[in-house]
Amino acid sequence: MSRRALAPGAGALSKRFADSLQPIPVPGVEVGALAAGIRYEDRLDLVAIRLCAESRSVAVFTRNAFCAAPVIVAREHLETSNGAARVLLINTGNANAGTGSAGEMAARECCAAAAHAAGFATQSVLPFSTGVIGEDLPVAKIIGATSELLDACNPNDWVKAATGIMTTDTLPKAASRRFGVGDETFALTGIAKGAGMLRPNMATMLAFFATDAPIASSLLQSILAKAVEQSFHRITVDGDTSTNDAVVLSSTGSSCLIEDAHHPVALELARALNSLSLELAQGLVRDGEGASKFIEITVDGGNDARECLDVAFVIAHSPLVKTALFAADPNWGRLLAAIGRAGIAALDVSRIRISIGNCVIAEAGARAANYDEAAVAAFMAQRDVVLNIDLGRGEASETVWTCDLGYEYVRINAEYRS
Amino acid sequence: MSRRALAPGAGALSKRFADSLQPIPVPGVEVGALAAGIRYEDRLDLVAIRLCAESRSVAVFTRNAFCAAPVIVAREHLETSNGAARVLLINTGNANAGTGSAGEMAARECCAAAAHAAGFATQSVLPFSTGVIGEDLPVAKIIGATSELLDACNPNDWVKAATGIMTTDTLPKAASRRFGVGDETFALTGIAKGAGMLRPNMATMLAFFATDAPIASSLLQSILAKAVEQSFHRITVDGDTSTNDAVVLSSTGSSCLIEDAHHPVALELARALNSLSLELAQGLVRDGEGASKFIEITVDGGNDARECLDVAFVIAHSPLVKTALFAADPNWGRLLAAIGRAGIAALDVSRIRISIGNCVIAEAGARAANYDEAAVAAFMAQRDVVLNIDLGRGEASETVWTCDLGYEYVRINAEYRS
Repeated sequence: MSRRALAPGAGALSKRFADSLQPIPVPGVEVGALAAGIRYEDRLDLVAIRLCAESRSVAVFTRNAFCAAPVIVAREHLETSNGAARVLLINTGNANAGTGSAGEMAARECCAAAAHAAGFATQSVLPFSTGVIGEDLPVAKIIGATSELLDACNPNDWVKAATGIMTTDTLPKAASRRFGVGDETFALTGIAKGAGMLRPNMATMLAFFATDAPIASSLLQSILAKAVEQSFHRITVDGDTSTNDAVVLSSTGSSCLIEDAHHPVALELARALNSLSLELAQGLVRDGEGASKFIEITVDGGNDARECLDVAFVIAHSPLVKTALFAADPNWGRLLAAIGRAGIAALDVSRIRISIGNCVIAEAGARAANYDEAAVAAFMAQRDVVLNIDLGRGEASETVWTCDLGYEYVRINAEYRS
Repeated sequence: MSRRALAPGAGALSKRFADSLQPIPVPGVEVGALAAGIRYEDRLDLVAIRLCAESRSVAVFTRNAFCAAPVIVAREHLETSNGAARVLLINTGNANAGTGSAGEMAARECCAAAAHAAGFATQSVLPFSTGVIGEDLPVAKIIGATSELLDACNPNDWVKAATGIMTTDTLPKAASRRFGVGDETFALTGIAKGAGMLRPNMATMLAFFATDAPIASSLLQSILAKAVEQSFHRITVDGDTSTNDAVVLSSTGSSCLIEDAHHPVALELARALNSLSLELAQGLVRDGEGASKFIEITVDGGNDARECLDVAFVIAHSPLVKTALFAADPNWGRLLAAIGRAGIAALDVSRIRISIGNCVIAEAGARAANYDEAAVAAFMAQRDVVLNIDLGRGEASETVWTCDLGYEYVRINAEYRS
């Protein structure tokens, strides 16, 4: 039987999770969560992340043109405060999206109340919301709970905070990395919820990271952007993106701020953040809407990263491929057709090789000579499935992660509001 | 309640079907179908369309880079014969796709056999295949049945031919138009099957049109390209395209061939073909995989056709929108989020108005002031649902048609091969 080396991603899959730590405190950061009754009673739905005075925060927001009111306000506050955020205030149960100018006013009122309670300027509070779209934010409930929430914050409650930002996620996602250079050691802790439009009425992917490594804002922003690019921008469930997506990175370290990207501490933070954001991003896919399988798609042999990603995302978004994966059906014709419509210029189909697990299933524009359907079906029956496409035209390689599409996806999305 | 005029497409929907005729003979054309046992016994699976000596044929083929063997051969024969096709030979049950060079040889052998039986050159036969991908074409069965098939052709069997090209379509699609200029009248008849990757293992949209209007080849090609653009390229089920898609237009009229696009007969043919191809294209969507609703999406107020189509197709391909339509859930947040990620430059969301039926559901970036969920839900509960998006930035308008996404889609696509 024709075989090739295991796809690069396949071996890495388990390793990527190996260095995961339970969330650990980050000096200068306190977190808390409580039930404010925003949409449901007795459910954690309001979370605060308090940052020490010397900290600086950077963020990446949704690219959706319809961005929600809290995104508009958080972006503005980050800019006017020059990144000196003191409180990240996150509510679930209501996305404050599709609410027009009234929604923006509501977000500002919540920030003002939290700032007043803590004795800060309004622009040092960043608002984040996730939940149902198009309904008025219950401002009074949020304002009424803010003082108690801020008082309850402490260094240890990261799992509680991760639980408090959940909407229809089935598990909290929180993890940490420790890293060091010489005698110095630092912490990096992150929490995340719901990928993209995974949960459409609870329509947001949010992630918050904090570290005590002393990195200057501009370098922090570039480290975050790169980490997001290789993790949250490489996962997809159904191609839909949210009006509220945000990823924030805060640094509390205050002495001798590092501005050089080649400084050992910056390099170590980047490495840790890449690894941690990938772990959380993959965790979101694994907890995806109705997902029964975790799919890794690696496209290599491309001329550049763009064409590898184009092919990978066409496959990841193809309902036909996703239903075949759900059924563990080695329907390679669907893969071939998806690759063919990815819009790659001058694609020579005779050079393409498609593998599932370590079985080559198609090459030279046809089924592989030694194709063994039983072996392929056995790979597809596993919880984690690795697809590899070799375009045979260059050196670029990219990997994306997605899940399958089955009855449960339809049930959740069709019946959610009924 | 805030109301606007019925979307332009809404009123047109029923009218578009009003001038449909049962298929009528076209002078110079004979058709036939028989059961050759290609994949199943006792099922019509081999079809021929015979064209008189003076006829000329033009075609539009799949844009998928993985095009099937019959597409390669048909394109080549059209070119070498200068459009002088005499037999269109169509089989179901096997797509002869993903079969490499052996598949190309198989398609050529079938053409040679049909040409020999009828006394033509091989390049006057055009092959078309639809069915399972990646299996060898049963050449002997096709060759063995060719003489009988060609002998059985007659002017009247268009419905039988439409039935013979079906794979998992539930109904044959065949219709006609009559048109005339002065004393002259002409016929236009077309048959079609399976839209795009509707039926993924039977993976092809095929349509064949014939007319006796005497139009020269180059004009015929441009009339066909325009008709396809506003019909088959405006429908989608799941965004997947096939390796075998083809649309052919043959003209048998031989005296005084018309080359002027403004000639009354050319204008009338274009009008009739636009109407007929739209009827057949919409018929394919209505018979879509697991479809329970027929969705018309009109985007107007765009700067140009491209941005209207980008928005319309993002909506038409959004699994979240399609599942909401399946559930008749007026989840306008999903529409808003889909529009927001369509990549339209400098989109001013405050100018966008979204309507379902004749109810405005969102405007000024928020839910419409007089939004009436019960009225919207009533529109969505109908078999035909009309969505209208006004971008509020220009004069362009485009319409696409699609269907919803429910359990039946998953069942068909997940369980098809099991």
